[in-house]
Amino acid sequence: MPAPYTLVLLRHGNSEWNQKNLFTGWVDVGLTDIGKAESERAGELLAEQGVLPDVVHTSVLKRAIVTANIALEQADRLWIDVKRSWRLNERHYGALQGLDKAETLEKYGEEQFMQWRRSFDVPPPPIDDDDEWSQVGDARYAGLADDELPRTECLKDVIARMMPYWEGPLADDLRAGKTVLVAAHGNSLRALVKHLDGISDDDIAGLNIPTGIPLVYTLGEDLMPLKPAEYLDPEAAAAGAAAVAAQGKK
Amino acid sequence: MPAPYTLVLLRHGNSEWNQKNLFTGWVDVGLTDIGKAESERAGELLAEQGVLPDVVHTSVLKRAIVTANIALEQADRLWIDVKRSWRLNERHYGALQGLDKAETLEKYGEEQFMQWRRSFDVPPPPIDDDDEWSQVGDARYAGLADDELPRTECLKDVIARMMPYWEGPLADDLRAGKTVLVAAHGNSLRALVKHLDGISDDDIAGLNIPTGIPLVYTLGEDLMPLKPAEYLDPEAAAAGAAAVAAQGKK
Repeated sequence: MPAPYTLVLLRHGNSEWNQKNLFTGWVDVGLTDIGKAESERAGELLAEQGVLPDVVHTSVLKRAIVTANIALEQADRLWIDVKRSWRLNERHYGALQGLDKAETLEKYGEEQFMQWRRSFDVPPPPIDDDDEWSQVGDARYAGLADDELPRTECLKDVIARMMPYWEGPLADDLRAGKTVLVAAHGNSLRALVKHLDGISDDDIAGLNIPTGIPLVYTLGEDLMPLKPAEYLDPEAAAAGAAAVAAQGKK
Repeated sequence: MPAPYTLVLLRHGNSEWNQKNLFTGWVDVGLTDIGKAESERAGELLAEQGVLPDVVHTSVLKRAIVTANIALEQADRLWIDVKRSWRLNERHYGALQGLDKAETLEKYGEEQFMQWRRSFDVPPPPIDDDDEWSQVGDARYAGLADDELPRTECLKDVIARMMPYWEGPLADDLRAGKTVLVAAHGNSLRALVKHLDGISDDDIAGLNIPTGIPLVYTLGEDLMPLKPAEYLDPEAAAAGAAAVAAQGKK
């Protein structure tokens, strides 16, 4: 199909560990009631503004899957095609997974803390394979080679494992003329936005994608934006991005 | 992969129109709270008995989709592959869609009523394309040729459109060694069970599949049963089948 193509990005809503202020990464926690309400609102925005996905791609983490399910039910599009991939997962937070953010900040100081959270190419220490929050042995990753399964990641690592999915399944569905919804996470979406908006390695840390507000890209034949992307609720998006930026500083 | 293969059938739980005693067919109604509780119980049974699907196939109707979503969330398998097809839809009830079952019984008499409900090869009268409950123009069927989109169906028609899906996508996933969950409807599952258990055209009307209780088939290389299928909760299944048989007679 000829361009323009429509790509919709949706970051999952508030999760149980956002609520508890813990580093989550690949730990598979559910949404809170707030997160479910955010997902409903996302679905209402899609329906109200007539942005109707033909296919949804999610990570294999339930906070993204349930966000998509709730939003699509609200928009009466539960019946569309579904694809899932670990390549859309959140950044693996390594040994930080399961730790309290405020305690980690206090223990290691702001400089180290912010480097772990925002460095482009310095990952946190790797998680032990026998750590309670390791993903080794998780059935959903059984198809991955051992050296494909991350023990920690920086944003650069996320980009490296996300981009083949962009160039493969996502590009294929877009070129087929489908309106594509991607329901995923702060860092996998940041990786995608970095590519689409040509954001530098230094500047990407400052980009905060708000939760639960669909972000719509209109793409050309080269699958790059024809115009700036638009949030379906720009005011809520601005407020949400500010809230995310302040996260962990409490 | 070599046999045996595992196939799990799950009929959706109580829907809004089951509750109201209306003919539903292809009308896209949601689950009631009872239906959601049935779906949770189905997920518990899968988890407790270690029957863990690798892929789920659903119809494009939300009562089947939500049944699968709830059951898989309960079994911690939301991350598995998902496929959907109109070929797994409930039988199209023609002009009866949207009518009250008890009123229809009273108006047309038990003989006509039971023929519409249970005849193998006599469909109800077709629904008008401009009927409120017609599916003409529904985006989810946009890929079907006009003569593929049913206006009414008998069970024989359901078998004819379901079997290519059994021989195609379902057989492919089973032969790949995946535990396959099919979340669907009374008549699309009846069509599948008729094939698997070799039930005659005359006897199939007497088969009542209970809602919300996973039915597990163990299949050989020819994708036919190696032994009788088993409900994961046989007592509840027997009670449920009796309740379904009595349905509409109130």
